[in-house]
Amino acid sequence: MKEIKVVRRVLDVNEMMADQNRRRFADSKVFVLNVMSSPGAGKTTLLEKTLEQLMPEVRCAVIVGDICTTNDADRLAKSGVDVVQVNTDEFGGDCHLAAHVIENAAANFDLAGLDLLIVENVGNLVCPAEFELGEQARVMLLSTPEGDDKPSKYPLMFRISNVLIVNKIDLLAHVPFSMEAFRRDAGLIQPDLIIFELSALTGQGLEPWLDWLRERVAERKAAG
Amino acid sequence: MKEIKVVRRVLDVNEMMADQNRRRFADSKVFVLNVMSSPGAGKTTLLEKTLEQLMPEVRCAVIVGDICTTNDADRLAKSGVDVVQVNTDEFGGDCHLAAHVIENAAANFDLAGLDLLIVENVGNLVCPAEFELGEQARVMLLSTPEGDDKPSKYPLMFRISNVLIVNKIDLLAHVPFSMEAFRRDAGLIQPDLIIFELSALTGQGLEPWLDWLRERVAERKAAG
Repeated sequence: MKEIKVVRRVLDVNEMMADQNRRRFADSKVFVLNVMSSPGAGKTTLLEKTLEQLMPEVRCAVIVGDICTTNDADRLAKSGVDVVQVNTDEFGGDCHLAAHVIENAAANFDLAGLDLLIVENVGNLVCPAEFELGEQARVMLLSTPEGDDKPSKYPLMFRISNVLIVNKIDLLAHVPFSMEAFRRDAGLIQPDLIIFELSALTGQGLEPWLDWLRERVAERKAAG
Repeated sequence: MKEIKVVRRVLDVNEMMADQNRRRFADSKVFVLNVMSSPGAGKTTLLEKTLEQLMPEVRCAVIVGDICTTNDADRLAKSGVDVVQVNTDEFGGDCHLAAHVIENAAANFDLAGLDLLIVENVGNLVCPAEFELGEQARVMLLSTPEGDDKPSKYPLMFRISNVLIVNKIDLLAHVPFSMEAFRRDAGLIQPDLIIFELSALTGQGLEPWLDWLRERVAERKAAG
């Protein structure tokens, strides 16, 4: 029981920091996304394609969380976007990003000069779901090879997400995955989920996702 | 710093419990596997196929860790194997199994009547790597759609594993994955890794893995 209490306190402190971040991001009218998934679901490829289409009209920056390496940040930097890499092994090999880490990383950007700040979380379908960062929207990716049984097995990630991107639909013919069953089970956990089916690799289905993002950024700028 | 200290203490206690489990398993001459991977890499399908081939010659039991649901345990029970399901949401939604959980779960079996006890860990490429369970061998699965860049990004899991199963090789023609690059990078982190390439779904490449397992079980029985 003692262990759980400690975790509870860590989460409370995190929530306070997340609220602080949220206010700061609102003041700067920057829209902030927290992108989460299992390892290898295609977060970095999706962001590469997304930045390619949105920039320079939408002024973007990215915070990339990884345990080690700057591989993903290096890939994203090729698009010309400003990237800050956070290596969680500097503070114990953490399996998620936390609000205080985002606060420090965001200090590297001129927030008022940004429209969209994307956080690519550590590849993990469990722990990142527990840590708010101060984001406006939480996006989870689920790739078709991972299987259609994931909503009931990892319910918290589905419950706290606003957007579900079903990635790697180019593999649908080759993997056992029922889109109908998956959509039904995900909807039972979170009826308000906005779902996009796409292939970040081939570009198929990317437009509705980009339109959604552009609308959110425009709304944010228009907000008082 | 305080937070890290608490984590350290939790890990120390876990190691003590793992040693206790290890002695108990050795006394019973049961070979114990800890199977880990990202969500959806194919752990349960691999175990289904493995049990189908090994039983009843090899007397098997399985402990399945999941945050929620008994889906995987239900699938495995169809093979006739004795299964204990551990739902980690009963103790805080944990993202990994720990040694004291295995101690309790193993108490459901007559260990002396077993040859092989398989632990299917929670789907997570990060946290389970930190928690020894008292196993004789750690097996990690990596499925080809997850990408060949995982060794340097999740090094701890590769470093602590004895066996690496590259699963879903039936998808190699459809995903960007260089087996050569992957084997090289994995070998740099853990030169002693025993690597099997297979497709649990199609059964391709399953035999060398089954032979390896049968040999380990026989060794264990022969040990003084």
